[in-house]
Amino acid sequence: MNAVEIIQKKRDRIALSDQEISWLIDSYTTGRVPDYQMAAMAMAVFLNGLEGAELAAWTGAMLHSGETLDLSDITAPIVDKHSTGGVGDKVSIPLTSMVAALGVAIPMISGRALGHTGGTLDKLESIPGFTTALDPAHFRSVLTMCGLVLAGQSDTLVPADRKLYALRDATGTVESIPLIASSIMSKKLAEDLDGLVLDVKVGHGAFMKDLAIARQLAETMVDIGAAYSVKTVALLTAMDTPLGNEVGNANEIAESINVLAGGGPADLVEVTMALGAEMLALAGVESDRESGRAMLEQTRSNGQALEVFARVIEAQGGDPKVVEQPATVLPSAPHRAEVAATRSGFISTLDALWVGVAAMRLGAGRERKEDTIDPGVGITILHKPGEAVAEGEPVLRLTYRHPARLEEALRVLEGAITVSDEAPAEQPLVIDRVS
Amino acid sequence: MNAVEIIQKKRDRIALSDQEISWLIDSYTTGRVPDYQMAAMAMAVFLNGLEGAELAAWTGAMLHSGETLDLSDITAPIVDKHSTGGVGDKVSIPLTSMVAALGVAIPMISGRALGHTGGTLDKLESIPGFTTALDPAHFRSVLTMCGLVLAGQSDTLVPADRKLYALRDATGTVESIPLIASSIMSKKLAEDLDGLVLDVKVGHGAFMKDLAIARQLAETMVDIGAAYSVKTVALLTAMDTPLGNEVGNANEIAESINVLAGGGPADLVEVTMALGAEMLALAGVESDRESGRAMLEQTRSNGQALEVFARVIEAQGGDPKVVEQPATVLPSAPHRAEVAATRSGFISTLDALWVGVAAMRLGAGRERKEDTIDPGVGITILHKPGEAVAEGEPVLRLTYRHPARLEEALRVLEGAITVSDEAPAEQPLVIDRVS
Repeated sequence: MNAVEIIQKKRDRIALSDQEISWLIDSYTTGRVPDYQMAAMAMAVFLNGLEGAELAAWTGAMLHSGETLDLSDITAPIVDKHSTGGVGDKVSIPLTSMVAALGVAIPMISGRALGHTGGTLDKLESIPGFTTALDPAHFRSVLTMCGLVLAGQSDTLVPADRKLYALRDATGTVESIPLIASSIMSKKLAEDLDGLVLDVKVGHGAFMKDLAIARQLAETMVDIGAAYSVKTVALLTAMDTPLGNEVGNANEIAESINVLAGGGPADLVEVTMALGAEMLALAGVESDRESGRAMLEQTRSNGQALEVFARVIEAQGGDPKVVEQPATVLPSAPHRAEVAATRSGFISTLDALWVGVAAMRLGAGRERKEDTIDPGVGITILHKPGEAVAEGEPVLRLTYRHPARLEEALRVLEGAITVSDEAPAEQPLVIDRVS
Repeated sequence: MNAVEIIQKKRDRIALSDQEISWLIDSYTTGRVPDYQMAAMAMAVFLNGLEGAELAAWTGAMLHSGETLDLSDITAPIVDKHSTGGVGDKVSIPLTSMVAALGVAIPMISGRALGHTGGTLDKLESIPGFTTALDPAHFRSVLTMCGLVLAGQSDTLVPADRKLYALRDATGTVESIPLIASSIMSKKLAEDLDGLVLDVKVGHGAFMKDLAIARQLAETMVDIGAAYSVKTVALLTAMDTPLGNEVGNANEIAESINVLAGGGPADLVEVTMALGAEMLALAGVESDRESGRAMLEQTRSNGQALEVFARVIEAQGGDPKVVEQPATVLPSAPHRAEVAATRSGFISTLDALWVGVAAMRLGAGRERKEDTIDPGVGITILHKPGEAVAEGEPVLRLTYRHPARLEEALRVLEGAITVSDEAPAEQPLVIDRVS
């Protein structure tokens, strides 16, 4: 095998064999194929794509570039969920405890804040003591004990993806459907799942702004799942407005606890229920979506979901009292500022992208990889699109630590809110389902 | 400026500015932009191309990545010639001495054997003592003294090209018209020329097998020349059959001397005269091509061309007696073998690619960069296409040193010669002219 010949084939749109793909990914992981050859390959893939069989082989080669989880001793059905990332998207946190409370095992491996979007790991780490860096034995024991574990990716799982992702970031080859799909799916397939539910975000606050492209990504990932006999369902959900009323880290945990306790904003609950019903169906717990939702609702009213979350927090070193007294246990920055409506009317847009960027500027996200997260800062949405506001009425409340950062955030938020004479037409939250 | 943003623009087919291209090439030359970013860029250029203004800027940035020659003190018109490479293509050697004998200054910087094609430098170095590695002062003094210098590229001239060429070779991005054109033209424009004649080879023994692609390359290079006010003319010439009767190194020098002395095979003389007449026209010596050819012919009959060559050889450390006694001065390998016609008829094809590969196998070229050239081996063509042969009559004579290498060469030559009942239709040597 020869890297140049493989690059030339992809460059000339000739399909690669499984052997060629597997040799290339293996050799890249071990360093025999250098970054510059993989960079040329990534650009060739970006511009010429990967066909079905090639993409399955590519994902498989990534998946087998390191260790994979062996969860064959877990008798419960194993299902996970992945979101392509949005603003205020804390769905994973309430969702997993609710579904785990119904007997589904969830070995969830999550990511960190990326650009203007938050990260489940960063949010969880705002709970004092909570650790997401678990060694394999600890990971397995939390999963066995609680039916749920919420952890970061270990170095041994899909090392090819970590290396390739960093390279893509530096070579302008990030926004490629096959490369995104294989990156996500290789990590999820390494979890030894029975089923996988994908939340593909679409809209101005998502990485996919365009419905057709988001649908293509969803279909591509569902196809990869099928190639590896993992039942995969994707929901396309709206990400033009932040999900829920809190954007940040500690404040998103508080909102998640509120959902688990039976409350929470309608949009966040709706997306959580829709994804949860799909997880229950894939797990074989309840195939009817309406009945599934009712079961999930019950885990909130009978306290089981909150109990699962408290057990996981305790098992991962965090303070479980957070579920009863979030306001006292969770950190919060000292200062508050508000953004008010500049005229009376109905809020027509509350732009998720700019709210996400503003939260990042406050310190809730990372501008650069080496930045640390300030868990106590964030943005609270007081009025969502469709709601009536009077001129001067606060729409956003910013919790901040440094005045200079507040100023940056306020600058970003100029133009993020639009107020109109008429209420905007209601948009569906779940746009489509791909399976 | 940011390399990722520049790569993304080219990836998305957005035209790059002069500043972006110049920053990228400069930063790559100094090492601030790493190989992996340039590899992604090279693939994006390969697949999405470079438009006219971009290509001129790219070539200019390469050209200014190092030192350039300042030949402003040379009063003679300065013209050079470049060939894209062929088999038996020793044209530069007789051509330059003939044109220099007519008062044109030629600061020729040549290359080495590449793949199945020979290199002017390797051929010249078969003359005992001849050196092509000249420091700037030596380069200039030979040019001033002889009106001609035949040298290799110094490390300080167009360093971006040396770096980028090695990267392209390792990343499957060699065969790109804009990258080939900018590589050739940046090196030639660094020679401070008044005019440039390009010999773009087309056919089975050339890098460009396809006439349309060769024409595109010729037009692209002529356009770049125009952008830098260097009058540039390209001839598209046939490279299906080796040029002349000798393929190798020392034997090609002997054939070149034969041309300079008034002899030589018709095809070699024809291409030399056609290119020489273009050089004389660009130099302003003689605009009429027929009169130019007559002047070139005269340099052969009056001994001036051979005298220029002898002076250059002496100035570059070689033994000038070679021009009078090539057979005694030039090295020759000890053994001879022949390839005979397998039937009677007319030779219809004598495949330049396979003859070139066979010569390389004998040791006349390099399989790998680190291989050394054996100047004394080579292939002599006894009958060219169109000539009648009897079954068993020798068509090729191989001069070799190692029997194992002879065997490899003979294996390559199987099928290189076709004999037909009818003489093939005569093909033009000069296929087209682009200016």
